[in-house]
Amino acid sequence: MWRIRPQPQLSFALEIACLDLEGVLIPEIWINVAQKTGIDALLATTRDIPDYDELMGQRLRILEENDLTIHDVQEVIDTLGPLEGAKEFLDWLKARFQVVILSDTFYEFADPLMRQLDYPTLFCHKLGIGDGGRIEDYHLRMPDQKREAVKRFHELNFKVIASGDSYNDTTMLTEADRGILFCPPQNVIDEFPQFPVAGDYEDLKREFLKAQEAIQ
Amino acid sequence: MWRIRPQPQLSFALEIACLDLEGVLIPEIWINVAQKTGIDALLATTRDIPDYDELMGQRLRILEENDLTIHDVQEVIDTLGPLEGAKEFLDWLKARFQVVILSDTFYEFADPLMRQLDYPTLFCHKLGIGDGGRIEDYHLRMPDQKREAVKRFHELNFKVIASGDSYNDTTMLTEADRGILFCPPQNVIDEFPQFPVAGDYEDLKREFLKAQEAIQ
Repeated sequence: MWRIRPQPQLSFALEIACLDLEGVLIPEIWINVAQKTGIDALLATTRDIPDYDELMGQRLRILEENDLTIHDVQEVIDTLGPLEGAKEFLDWLKARFQVVILSDTFYEFADPLMRQLDYPTLFCHKLGIGDGGRIEDYHLRMPDQKREAVKRFHELNFKVIASGDSYNDTTMLTEADRGILFCPPQNVIDEFPQFPVAGDYEDLKREFLKAQEAIQ
Repeated sequence: MWRIRPQPQLSFALEIACLDLEGVLIPEIWINVAQKTGIDALLATTRDIPDYDELMGQRLRILEENDLTIHDVQEVIDTLGPLEGAKEFLDWLKARFQVVILSDTFYEFADPLMRQLDYPTLFCHKLGIGDGGRIEDYHLRMPDQKREAVKRFHELNFKVIASGDSYNDTTMLTEADRGILFCPPQNVIDEFPQFPVAGDYEDLKREFLKAQEAIQ
């Protein structure tokens, strides 16, 4: 009747929810910096330039040309809040899954918004800040870090349900047990028809519950 | 002047704080169940029996003998709160580090207390619940999961500062870049003199900041 099983059992599901940050819980930071500063060239995102290094190189060149420091960028970020309903959605998710945010942003940019979300666990990157607040360079913690994190969670015997909105999320979604696109642009929908698409947070809750049921 | 470095840079520190749960943020669950039910045999912890499988086998046998279900145990846990000052300490820590709780408890036990701590990310284990709420068995997600998690965080290019109070934390503390004992029993202090000891949350904050400085 009592079956004590000290050996690992993999017939049960223990799920981690991995969420992209910008476009899922908070606004796109670079787009907002572009709009507030009036520098149209900063409007490009990974939706437009899938190669992240190319995109970041362009962004840092533009900041240099316009003499903008980390303080200027943080001033803009300070005026932003999480997306409407994001905090409630995240609270709902945390009560049902272990949540880790996987983002290609930088801790220096994310911090004021993370505070408003009660600091969920965030894996992202770090800027190199020089004298006077100059953004001298950027440090990617590792290449393809979102996918690598999902792999490591699998090695820890978790199942993973991931959600994101753009190109740089698709390797994470593919590596996960279930992937969900949240408000993606049409080109991402067309290129990755294998992922269900959620159009708002209520949709996304339903997709997470469906995914949870499917992998158990 | 501008040095764009698209390759991973490891000369900077990105830190995860790994915390044990029972004895660090919340009371020892089994001890409280023992006290509230008056079953002295449930007073044993990993402090007394370092072999976790042996300890759990004993606990489940005792529950069976006393006809106690998961509902009885959860009733006791519902009456507990986090340790005094734990929520404030955790909020302080989350603002400075990415926090992951590594515990050898079970999600079914931890949940009511996690809610009171705003659901920090928790890696632990799962019970096997049968008809009528019988705790039939337990599922260890993997052996030595605390240490394995620290290894995986290292592979993701994080540095790790870990803190715990008892025997089952010492492999995690050893694997981490810096380990801190929090209110440990004397036998753990004697056996692991290499780790600094924090006696309260103010001490623990200081030790985390010292550790952060040391590994940067």
